[in-house]
Amino acid sequence: MGSLLGRYFSIMTFGESHGAGLGVVIDGLPAGLAISQEDLQRDLDRRKPGQSEFTTARRESDQVEILSGLTSQGLTNGAPLALLVRNQEARGADYAKTAQVFRPGHADWTYFKKYGLKPQAGGGRASGRETVGRVAAGAVARQLLKALGITVRSGTMAVGPIWVEKIDWAFSETNALKFLDQNSYPQASQAVLEAKDQGDSLGSVVTVSALGLPVGWGDPVFDKLEALLGQAFFSIGAVKAVEFGDGLALSRMRGSQANDPMGPQGPLRNRHGGILGGLSSGTELLARLYLKPTPSIALDQETINLEGQPSIISITGRHDPCLAPRLGPVAEAMCLITLADCYLRGPAQLEQIWPPK
Amino acid sequence: MGSLLGRYFSIMTFGESHGAGLGVVIDGLPAGLAISQEDLQRDLDRRKPGQSEFTTARRESDQVEILSGLTSQGLTNGAPLALLVRNQEARGADYAKTAQVFRPGHADWTYFKKYGLKPQAGGGRASGRETVGRVAAGAVARQLLKALGITVRSGTMAVGPIWVEKIDWAFSETNALKFLDQNSYPQASQAVLEAKDQGDSLGSVVTVSALGLPVGWGDPVFDKLEALLGQAFFSIGAVKAVEFGDGLALSRMRGSQANDPMGPQGPLRNRHGGILGGLSSGTELLARLYLKPTPSIALDQETINLEGQPSIISITGRHDPCLAPRLGPVAEAMCLITLADCYLRGPAQLEQIWPPK
Amino acid sequence: MGSLLGRYFSIMTFGESHGAGLGVVIDGLPAGLAISQEDLQRDLDRRKPGQSEFTTARRESDQVEILSGLTSQGLTNGAPLALLVRNQEARGADYAKTAQVFRPGHADWTYFKKYGLKPQAGGGRASGRETVGRVAAGAVARQLLKALGITVRSGTMAVGPIWVEKIDWAFSETNALKFLDQNSYPQASQAVLEAKDQGDSLGSVVTVSALGLPVGWGDPVFDKLEALLGQAFFSIGAVKAVEFGDGLALSRMRGSQANDPMGPQGPLRNRHGGILGGLSSGTELLARLYLKPTPSIALDQETINLEGQPSIISITGRHDPCLAPRLGPVAEAMCLITLADCYLRGPAQLEQIWPPK
Amino acid sequence: MGSLLGRYFSIMTFGESHGAGLGVVIDGLPAGLAISQEDLQRDLDRRKPGQSEFTTARRESDQVEILSGLTSQGLTNGAPLALLVRNQEARGADYAKTAQVFRPGHADWTYFKKYGLKPQAGGGRASGRETVGRVAAGAVARQLLKALGITVRSGTMAVGPIWVEKIDWAFSETNALKFLDQNSYPQASQAVLEAKDQGDSLGSVVTVSALGLPVGWGDPVFDKLEALLGQAFFSIGAVKAVEFGDGLALSRMRGSQANDPMGPQGPLRNRHGGILGGLSSGTELLARLYLKPTPSIALDQETINLEGQPSIISITGRHDPCLAPRLGPVAEAMCLITLADCYLRGPAQLEQIWPPK
Repeated sequence: MGSLLGRYFSIMTFGESHGAGLGVVIDGLPAGLAISQEDLQRDLDRRKPGQSEFTTARRESDQVEILSGLTSQGLTNGAPLALLVRNQEARGADYAKTAQVFRPGHADWTYFKKYGLKPQAGGGRASGRETVGRVAAGAVARQLLKALGITVRSGTMAVGPIWVEKIDWAFSETNALKFLDQNSYPQASQAVLEAKDQGDSLGSVVTVSALGLPVGWGDPVFDKLEALLGQAFFSIGAVKAVEFGDGLALSRMRGSQANDPMGPQGPLRNRHGGILGGLSSGTELLARLYLKPTPSIALDQETINLEGQPSIISITGRHDPCLAPRLGPVAEAMCLITLADCYLRGPAQLEQIWPPK
Repeated sequence: MGSLLGRYFSIMTFGESHGAGLGVVIDGLPAGLAISQEDLQRDLDRRKPGQSEFTTARRESDQVEILSGLTSQGLTNGAPLALLVRNQEARGADYAKTAQVFRPGHADWTYFKKYGLKPQAGGGRASGRETVGRVAAGAVARQLLKALGITVRSGTMAVGPIWVEKIDWAFSETNALKFLDQNSYPQASQAVLEAKDQGDSLGSVVTVSALGLPVGWGDPVFDKLEALLGQAFFSIGAVKAVEFGDGLALSRMRGSQANDPMGPQGPLRNRHGGILGGLSSGTELLARLYLKPTPSIALDQETINLEGQPSIISITGRHDPCLAPRLGPVAEAMCLITLADCYLRGPAQLEQIWPPK
Repeated sequence: MGSLLGRYFSIMTFGESHGAGLGVVIDGLPAGLAISQEDLQRDLDRRKPGQSEFTTARRESDQVEILSGLTSQGLTNGAPLALLVRNQEARGADYAKTAQVFRPGHADWTYFKKYGLKPQAGGGRASGRETVGRVAAGAVARQLLKALGITVRSGTMAVGPIWVEKIDWAFSETNALKFLDQNSYPQASQAVLEAKDQGDSLGSVVTVSALGLPVGWGDPVFDKLEALLGQAFFSIGAVKAVEFGDGLALSRMRGSQANDPMGPQGPLRNRHGGILGGLSSGTELLARLYLKPTPSIALDQETINLEGQPSIISITGRHDPCLAPRLGPVAEAMCLITLADCYLRGPAQLEQIWPPK
Repeated sequence: MGSLLGRYFSIMTFGESHGAGLGVVIDGLPAGLAISQEDLQRDLDRRKPGQSEFTTARRESDQVEILSGLTSQGLTNGAPLALLVRNQEARGADYAKTAQVFRPGHADWTYFKKYGLKPQAGGGRASGRETVGRVAAGAVARQLLKALGITVRSGTMAVGPIWVEKIDWAFSETNALKFLDQNSYPQASQAVLEAKDQGDSLGSVVTVSALGLPVGWGDPVFDKLEALLGQAFFSIGAVKAVEFGDGLALSRMRGSQANDPMGPQGPLRNRHGGILGGLSSGTELLARLYLKPTPSIALDQETINLEGQPSIISITGRHDPCLAPRLGPVAEAMCLITLADCYLRGPAQLEQIWPPK
């Protein structure tokens, strides 16, 4: 359960870290959208492991295969698009030790209680590799939204205590940490490497931004844009807080400070993060995702084994010391998938609805 | 759209601030659950307006009527439970002025663009009164979960810059602000009244806690417990950030600090907030909701009128100066509804599934 | 469970035969549709009991109240429309006897086993009165589709062994049996009254027709138009077979007889009943619903009591001797609801999708 | 759209007749169910083409690959099960001619209007090969239900005008037509071969039966067991009528004939087809599916070409002369999928619900 998302742009993902492969089926795409393997590969390559000293050394080519849903001209045919990425390097040996004990901060204990499963090689469905299907679906959503002039991007806002001073989107594309500020980058980079060298890991913050949204996407009540994105972002493992606009700061302000004044084109300021009354306001959509540190660390940790007896664990497999650089593309994907779903809900006024009268 | 929530404990809410009434239909309830009008009224009374100087002076008796779903013995019969609360004091005059301009920080502008509706009396579906249906459904969920020993509570964690120093659940029930700490209560209370006296409002933070959860509720991937609660909490108007456990602080920590060690009964500490791998861990579920200040303030604000021309607005209707005390019960309701939905998903292991073999 | 239908035009119905009332909440309506109490009452009056010798003598005014979802101008506001019909004549005494035994052909036995409920007064949720919410929702769908030039009608095709010889839609509106043929009407009428006089009941067949559908409504695979309508029609109690076009006859034909030839405007014949490849073909949509006789009869029947011991039952309450005249409007409603859902799915080609590029 | 089915046993199918492959992802399976490639292959082999003179000569090995969802012990792990069958013999040339004209009785015309697609090689998503994903999912459902003692079977009830005289399940497994009666088999077989020899095709009727169902599966109102099965069966291409029990005959009877008397163990007769009040009654579930003849025939047919001009078509590809033998396994699959969904809805009485109190 739980691998289905979206009412209009509906996706069902599948796959485990060390099984045959991972992927997604997307139902609800209109016919006539050009989708190429290259379009999808671009996004998949951005979340691929083994790309820098900041990420796990596991190597996966993550080549995506389009199994269905396209015409011979490479256009969607209105039928489900099925995408498959096969696993290559499934180094089960690394995980042999962890299989006897529950890793703190992981899904091992709760999955054991819920499913009766012993800790699985690489985390099974709870592994970060599960996000491959999401990124593939997000790449399709990106194509759908591109023609509307909507773009979604992400970057690292903080690693541990080191925060970006001034957001520089261009810079984030030049460093493997995806850090959004050149000034504080050296400290950020050093903080991550220090943690890594000490067998430890570091928390982080990712910013997601969407530009070009029309006014009025999202729905009232339970499907507010924050609510749909809230589910989408919190569905990413390691995300423990989500904030829209100046959300945290707003809770400390007065209304006279917090309300963004309105001008003829819409809000004149963006403390609200691009969502008003649960609907997009036409300004930049801004969200921050607060990530806990990678729970897999080499330092000794107190835990229990399968028999329930106290045990010490040190996790020596290949792991990202800091999750922000790899989860940024996943956060973008979840934003894209959510926006695609909002788009396909269609207009809300009778006179705008197809067929024209 | 957007008024439907839950796959197993499915609710559809309805109603506007100044229409005939508000309510909810709940489908998915098992037969045999005792539900009385009093059970529901208790929770509705907790969110009722007009109860103190901290809340709007609007007076509504908010009496709930059970339209269907019960046997003559007052037990659920397995059919939908329909609940109706009629509006009484619909003082449209207060809203006459605002109907010509878009209130900053409100849904007026986005609803106008999406639905073609002029700003509605009292906010229409975007009003806080919309939450009546949620609280009624939450009260039903509370009855369902009570027999399992699960309790959900909420309190005010902060108003503006004044934070609770030490959480005291008993104290929160003694003050109209639902503030969770007696020591800092005087400052908190003063801060709200000052803002109110100056025609302004104040941001705030609500804490929600659930006790007694078994291990393993929630589902992997998109239906992680944080994800379901994330949608539920962000669907409450004014919520602009949500945090589970020590979410914000975790993003600044190292893994060795953040991971909660495991003992034979489960996690020995609760920085994770009761959810591991997206599933309940058996420890206290803890979430914080960061609320923006009430956008309706008496101070002058820059905005535009229906013709798109610059205008100044001062909102003099009846409004809560601080949303935490009234949204606490709503946050509880959304938590209860989500947990009821998780409960009714049933077990995940073949051998635990009905019918027994 | 089971009281929710539709993905885009989503309805949740509620209510029992002898509770406070029945109704429906509709989510997904676009803003700007004119809906009046009169529009809804017209359809509700058509299914109302107590209108002729062919239907139960129970009298209900079935006045519908619109609880939410309209602007002060009587246009939908994009929020859920909640509709309520209160029960008036709940004559529990008639049902006292049946409460101790399971009525053959009724839901009594299966509801008892599933819900642990003793046979309920008037059938509870399994009563024909449950259809009030459907008809109310159908009336709303009718308004939505009217502007597109789509009309839906129904009539009685057969009662017992008496079949219509030639369909005459105008005639069906002139007789309480809604019989579609003047020639065979006397026999039909007599057959029903004979059965009634003998304390018995009669099976029947209802035809539903939709005119004005564009080409391409419905979706491939599981949401074929026949599949959506199949669920909708079979969800009406007493429907035991459903046929589209010349469905039964087609199974006896050869392909060369069954295939309808194509002309420049579409199919030149309509053996297929207006659906090809699961999508509307632009020709008249034609379905037949085969209804079992009313299971409540005055004649002695063999059954068991609540203790499981053999018993004889004779049911003397107020019951329709033949279900077709009252279920016709319900069948129309289910057709309208399904078509509204198809309409709101929107276009399937990228270039037709909102917003225009 | 439309490739998603089931709320608890949720499946999303994908694939076209001449693309890379076909398959299904199943979400909602409990952990601990043994699933082997052989279990699935057995059912897939039963629907495989090229097995007799009664079916198309197209040859496909239809080997299924399990991409995800199993532990190393071959048990479900609670995550989605993804199944893939690659296409092998995609003989596009056969279809070259038909691509310029709309085949009568096919989805060509409606798909062209809806999706803007020219008639696709082999029918694309509208091809009978689309059912591969269904049969794979049905095989999984069969494993789930087997442990409960539930079995589902199907057979050919009629071909053209030749009906079974007496149902003989054992005999149907011995002939390629899956005909259910040895006496009338020679005529049935001859009728199909005659039609085939003349370049024509023949309509047919399939019976589906489920044994071992407990009382109370299905839900009231819109999710009646007939309604869920109605959608499932009508979603199979070529099905133009569906009947439960003696559905057609019941519409001609009186109540005193139609009602099945009740005994201490439940209904003493089965005219109702195993469903009462929308719930399973514990007796044999019996449904009949009425299939139109294969629309692809070699005889000349009147149609139009892509430019809308009158044209004559003769379809000479490989096609089944009669659909019953190949759609029987598909009908079983749809029944199994629906029953699995009902099973996973769980109990409806509070005291039976997990966790036990």
